[in-house]
Amino acid sequence: MPIRFWYFIFNSYLCTRIHKKKYEMAKELKNLTKRSDNYSQWYNELVMKAELAEQAEVRGCMCIRPYGYAIWEKIQSELDRKFKETGVVNAYFPLLIPKSFLSKEAEHVEGFAKECAVVTHYRLKTNDTHDGVVVDPDAKLEEELIIRPTSETIIWNTYKNWIKSYRDLPILCNQWCNVMRWEMRTRLFLRTSEFLWQEGHTAHATREEAEDRARMMLKVYADFAENFMAVPVVQGVKSETERFAGALDTYTIEAMMQDGKALQSGTSHFLGQNFGKAFGVTFLNKDQQQDYAWATSWGVSTRLMGALIMTHSDDNGLVLPPRLAPLQVVIVPIWKTDEQLAAIDAKAGEICANLRSKGITVKYDNDDQKRPGFKFADYELKGIPVRLAIGARDMENGTVEVMRRDTLEKETVSLEGIEAYVETLLDKIQENIFEKAKAFRDAHIYECNDYEEFKEKIQNGGFFLCPWDGTAETEARIKEETQATIRCVPFGTDQTNPGTDMVSGKPATCKVLIAKAY
Amino acid sequence: MPIRFWYFIFNSYLCTRIHKKKYEMAKELKNLTKRSDNYSQWYNELVMKAELAEQAEVRGCMCIRPYGYAIWEKIQSELDRKFKETGVVNAYFPLLIPKSFLSKEAEHVEGFAKECAVVTHYRLKTNDTHDGVVVDPDAKLEEELIIRPTSETIIWNTYKNWIKSYRDLPILCNQWCNVMRWEMRTRLFLRTSEFLWQEGHTAHATREEAEDRARMMLKVYADFAENFMAVPVVQGVKSETERFAGALDTYTIEAMMQDGKALQSGTSHFLGQNFGKAFGVTFLNKDQQQDYAWATSWGVSTRLMGALIMTHSDDNGLVLPPRLAPLQVVIVPIWKTDEQLAAIDAKAGEICANLRSKGITVKYDNDDQKRPGFKFADYELKGIPVRLAIGARDMENGTVEVMRRDTLEKETVSLEGIEAYVETLLDKIQENIFEKAKAFRDAHIYECNDYEEFKEKIQNGGFFLCPWDGTAETEARIKEETQATIRCVPFGTDQTNPGTDMVSGKPATCKVLIAKAY
Repeated sequence: MPIRFWYFIFNSYLCTRIHKKKYEMAKELKNLTKRSDNYSQWYNELVMKAELAEQAEVRGCMCIRPYGYAIWEKIQSELDRKFKETGVVNAYFPLLIPKSFLSKEAEHVEGFAKECAVVTHYRLKTNDTHDGVVVDPDAKLEEELIIRPTSETIIWNTYKNWIKSYRDLPILCNQWCNVMRWEMRTRLFLRTSEFLWQEGHTAHATREEAEDRARMMLKVYADFAENFMAVPVVQGVKSETERFAGALDTYTIEAMMQDGKALQSGTSHFLGQNFGKAFGVTFLNKDQQQDYAWATSWGVSTRLMGALIMTHSDDNGLVLPPRLAPLQVVIVPIWKTDEQLAAIDAKAGEICANLRSKGITVKYDNDDQKRPGFKFADYELKGIPVRLAIGARDMENGTVEVMRRDTLEKETVSLEGIEAYVETLLDKIQENIFEKAKAFRDAHIYECNDYEEFKEKIQNGGFFLCPWDGTAETEARIKEETQATIRCVPFGTDQTNPGTDMVSGKPATCKVLIAKAY
Repeated sequence: MPIRFWYFIFNSYLCTRIHKKKYEMAKELKNLTKRSDNYSQWYNELVMKAELAEQAEVRGCMCIRPYGYAIWEKIQSELDRKFKETGVVNAYFPLLIPKSFLSKEAEHVEGFAKECAVVTHYRLKTNDTHDGVVVDPDAKLEEELIIRPTSETIIWNTYKNWIKSYRDLPILCNQWCNVMRWEMRTRLFLRTSEFLWQEGHTAHATREEAEDRARMMLKVYADFAENFMAVPVVQGVKSETERFAGALDTYTIEAMMQDGKALQSGTSHFLGQNFGKAFGVTFLNKDQQQDYAWATSWGVSTRLMGALIMTHSDDNGLVLPPRLAPLQVVIVPIWKTDEQLAAIDAKAGEICANLRSKGITVKYDNDDQKRPGFKFADYELKGIPVRLAIGARDMENGTVEVMRRDTLEKETVSLEGIEAYVETLLDKIQENIFEKAKAFRDAHIYECNDYEEFKEKIQNGGFFLCPWDGTAETEARIKEETQATIRCVPFGTDQTNPGTDMVSGKPATCKVLIAKAY
């Protein structure tokens, strides 16, 4: 059968070409810009190469690719569980907000109304040349609609109908949705015009209960960041200047990226009665008096993906904490003969089943179109926490090579009991990457009382704990002269004797954390 | 302490007032319009009274309330699991689509471009009188953006960059998101301008594989509808007229509501190479030839909530299938003395723990601000599948009253082994409401070959299996004269000898299912 023969030869040739191409790809995958060379470029390349997200055709918007979205789903599911434990329920409110709603809360409109996507028409029609569509001028809306930049206004307009008595309170709603803020300079995950987030909006009968809730949700965020994302955070309260538009207090968690910059990773706002008053949400309290409802709102967004990437990853690619990794373990066989592969297949099948029964996600990759070297590079790039490699010799010796992604250390261990070994290792990795990030963060927090010293050192990043006189003027001057901002008045810092403001020389009211930020 | 005394008296008076009010509410809850009086009004009232959803301030949009959203979350989580079992992964694509994209696929634009929300500006500014905001005329977009009515165009524009070789295929992406179609006449869940849905978009190397996928997803939908929602469906393929804009074939599941009307509950489209060609998505196939990728898309939406409500519910309110009920069991204590309550509390706590360990969701409602009668009415309205009531006498006798929501039957059974009893009962209810809906549906499917008879009978609803000559003219005439449409060519119907078209008298090409539809 000569045709089959030539077909075989041709196929072999193709396979070789593909192998070669894939091998080059393996090297190219590794060809990530080094963090020390260009941190910002390293980040952009990593997001693209690890197939987390990419720029969309529409300015400033992103497409979240399946691997990136799988991580987001893990974030969502864990946060959602935590919210529900505190009594929160999910709901869904409309995407579009009447323009007039935005101006009902005066401070809110100042903070938000500027850069919004505005819907003005509701119909297209075929153009005159019949080869495209144009906006139908007859279908102009009476009142323009805004794509939600955040939903306080439309939600409080709805709560008005739900709240009559203190018995209807508290209301603890959250929604997972998309929002839109027309950003001028965008970066994948960190700042995009459209992004995904959750926004919680609660209504309470008393000021105390609302303040407690705002702080409770900050704790939920901090706990999640540290224990699931392995991202250490500083908790604190924002200065007046940095507050959310319409809030009386904004609580924040601030994480330190590997370039020493701060990334605001979640905020929780105590909104007082501002929205209650703006939307006429009154209720009969226990004393039979009419009162306005007290509000909080709190949110985290796909920005957390940026925090995750920039806290742990290295020059080889992503490093994912095991608790958030969509895939925790990968097994790669190394074989020459079909018999060898069959034996490894059987053993790997066993290991997979045992790991899965422990709730560990695992993939066995015996794809014969890719070389082990390519697979190793690809799984490193994607940040899979643990890689097992099983070769023919391993099968003889009853061993397996274990590589942990966080340290890139390899070890040869016994196949016997490998599942328990992997389970323990995943916990160790989770702990190690948190401790590593925390050690880095702590090494880059400086107490500083001298403005000249501050101005010099801030250029290299880091968090600075400095005495502040509490004025917006000082705050503005620091920002203007150094681009750094007051991130927060950190919780747990001794504020009994804050000292002298390093800029104005006036008595300080508190010590604040200052940093350059994303 | 006279003040305390008067406070007590006043409080007692208040409680009585509240009890009375709540009791009236209980009656009022029941005061649902009867289906037989006005089916449409019954539906609208039920959606509102059971707190599933309500009209939003923005025309045609809805707010999905926590209870409605909890049901939607159950729908999502089960469907998502089923999708992933078939290899589907989730991703996220942008909300906004450049206007020009819509005209790239000629048939698609005809079907969709008409009624869309159009974003023309990206900034607001404070008005001249400083008391509101206006659209900033300087912030006009060069090209208008459309809020996605469906995402084929933007997704295929992205796939262009992902697909080079047959090795990159298939791509099996799904997204859970909001979409917007500017509907003129809207009804909660059934037809709203904004709605939530999932849209799957797959790309394949061969026609066969794409067609298989389109049919596979229809089966996933049908299986979900029947086994989880307990909604029997007819599976079939749409006529050319009723196809999705841009599809070569549209597969559908059609459910029958209690008024005999059809509700299209999910569709799966085989799109051929239409979008591949429109967006230049080519790949190198196994024979080293360039070819266009083959496409499918498939979706279900919050419309399923409408199907759920209208298939099972009755004049007392919602009836939920146990597998989709956010709360499956409620326990209500009936007591006079604190001692009685304490004893019931303890017993109920035990039952709750045991039920939860079986994966059953249960709530113990010992709220002393609401009477048992009010609770009964409320849980009936909300469709909780099983209600247990435990009174002081029950405690003495070791019994409990069990009410099943589907039949409203009450039974007194032993407290001993109540958990196993409830577990079995939930399965029975799931099965019973499916069988009931199926019996109703089957009793209202008619074979019909006579157009006069058809015109008369169709006014009372039902599905009609009729011979059709395959022409759009006949189809249009039926629609014009009866408002009924061809729902599909049903699968599994003997088509060997379809007979004579009842309208035109010409030879029929097939038997089709005709019904009035939502």
